[in-house]
Amino acid sequence: MDIITLAHGSGGEETNQLIEDIFIRYFNTKELKEQNDSAILNELNGKIAVTTDSFVVNPIFFKGGDIGKLSICGTVNDLSVSGATPLYITVGFIIEEGFEIDDLKKIVKSMAITAKEAKVKIVAGDTKVVEKGRGDKLYINTTGIGVIENYGYILKGSNIEVGDKIILSGTIGEHGMCIINEREKLGIQSNIVSDCAPLNTLTEEILKCTKKIRIMRDPTRGGLANTLNELVNISEKSMKIYKKDIPITDEVRNFCDLLGFDPLYVANEGKLICIVSKNEVEKVLKVMKSNILGKNSAIIGEVIKDDKKNLYIENALGSTKILKMAQGELLPRIC
Amino acid sequence: MDIITLAHGSGGEETNQLIEDIFIRYFNTKELKEQNDSAILNELNGKIAVTTDSFVVNPIFFKGGDIGKLSICGTVNDLSVSGATPLYITVGFIIEEGFEIDDLKKIVKSMAITAKEAKVKIVAGDTKVVEKGRGDKLYINTTGIGVIENYGYILKGSNIEVGDKIILSGTIGEHGMCIINEREKLGIQSNIVSDCAPLNTLTEEILKCTKKIRIMRDPTRGGLANTLNELVNISEKSMKIYKKDIPITDEVRNFCDLLGFDPLYVANEGKLICIVSKNEVEKVLKVMKSNILGKNSAIIGEVIKDDKKNLYIENALGSTKILKMAQGELLPRIC
Repeated sequence: MDIITLAHGSGGEETNQLIEDIFIRYFNTKELKEQNDSAILNELNGKIAVTTDSFVVNPIFFKGGDIGKLSICGTVNDLSVSGATPLYITVGFIIEEGFEIDDLKKIVKSMAITAKEAKVKIVAGDTKVVEKGRGDKLYINTTGIGVIENYGYILKGSNIEVGDKIILSGTIGEHGMCIINEREKLGIQSNIVSDCAPLNTLTEEILKCTKKIRIMRDPTRGGLANTLNELVNISEKSMKIYKKDIPITDEVRNFCDLLGFDPLYVANEGKLICIVSKNEVEKVLKVMKSNILGKNSAIIGEVIKDDKKNLYIENALGSTKILKMAQGELLPRIC
Repeated sequence: MDIITLAHGSGGEETNQLIEDIFIRYFNTKELKEQNDSAILNELNGKIAVTTDSFVVNPIFFKGGDIGKLSICGTVNDLSVSGATPLYITVGFIIEEGFEIDDLKKIVKSMAITAKEAKVKIVAGDTKVVEKGRGDKLYINTTGIGVIENYGYILKGSNIEVGDKIILSGTIGEHGMCIINEREKLGIQSNIVSDCAPLNTLTEEILKCTKKIRIMRDPTRGGLANTLNELVNISEKSMKIYKKDIPITDEVRNFCDLLGFDPLYVANEGKLICIVSKNEVEKVLKVMKSNILGKNSAIIGEVIKDDKKNLYIENALGSTKILKMAQGELLPRIC
């Protein structure tokens, strides 16, 4: 039994064997072992946060991670930036016939390790197999449940006020450029490693230090520029960022230049945008810098008084332009 | 804009347009409209049930339903048979490039109608697009959250006792045979319609009428025989069913005979197996028969004293054989 066959998705003996030998073995939670149609969880004290994401990244293994690690981080991060403590994750696998079981094991193991790191439990799962040529190795859906209990306030766009500061937790563009380089086999010597990481320790520390966080987001698909444009839309306020203040490595900058990408639109998988009252910004920045995942944090801009609801960027020479929401293909299958 | 392009999955302007024009428009819930990274739900009073399922059924439209209706029913049913009241559903779409937007609209509309019927809210979603030839029109993941509050007891395999009766809520095999007929284009004149339906009204009525339900299951992939084998495994007790008592239409029986399928292993998507104390079985049967979805309910067997942990079937002539868990391909992509 070295590769996945259609029988593994038919709900019979082979499906059960796969569930026991791989999913239950590595995920190893009480809820999965019970093998009921639903996992039964204890009552949660507080509002509940729920998020879902499907992962179709290509390639499935890359520097700094794999589709499994990414699927846990992505969902943990969507809960974390909502101000929730991530608790439970469900996983749905769509596997292409012929996929190597050893690769599946590696990915499931990687999910288990990341889940442990992020202190979340994998409580329910599902496996489907599609014929060769009807998928691409492996697609994963992760849905996460968290609880909002500790902080006593809800993060939302309408909290955002003129004068608020925008903090970014580190250098941009690593995940997207890592994937492109590995997928397109550009033959470019590169040490760019995906920044893929669970952000919940960072968001917890931030939310503990102040009551003045307006909103948080992780700038994934569409990058920093699209995420800030979304925040402009939901807050109905203009924002301005400063190119010189946006952390980026020389390697990512050069690689983007070479390929004609704008790093502002390139995906990140372990970065955080945090909009905070200007009175608390230094405190928050200090807390963020003291966490390994936020050590390169920087104030990159602010919410400005301007009724045009635009995102502006000021370049090094002091001229300002509008950064629009991206259109077109960008980078497909980046997550 | 008639077909899905890779741009619809890139997280930019086109993705947002798709979300607003189709998902928010048809699903029309406050949580989706807020477009946050997580949906924030109110506190739930009681234990929480969670289940996840990916749907890869082929074809995506069939008599009695489509992949959208199926995805809501499947998840609602997994919660319902766990004794939970289904409340919230998340949806993850993996769309193949080139898929017709009109078909997507039909499916999303069908999901919205089924969700309304089952009284569940769609609170979070995600869309990914894969290149042509890396998917098959549309795959959907649905994850469901329900609450166990009304009944004061948890359904589980270890509740099952010798003497308990097995009730089946109606005729078997319709979903699987409908899909096979439509997919394989067998040219056989058939009126077999998928039984795809949300079972939560039925399970609620059952759980209200007695405290003696041991466990419930919906016999989907692998059919009645596999589901009962799973119950044999988790209860560690033998069960016996009677062929003459298992409801089946002539059309499904003949069609299975013709193609060489055993209807006991064919998938259902709107049927319920209920194991109940023998003292309460008539009361439960009456309640089930009075619900449109259970009008053909029948007692099909019982839990027997026998230490071999087998599922037995007695045929019309009185001979008994063991019904094993199915092995091999069965019917791929039936759900």
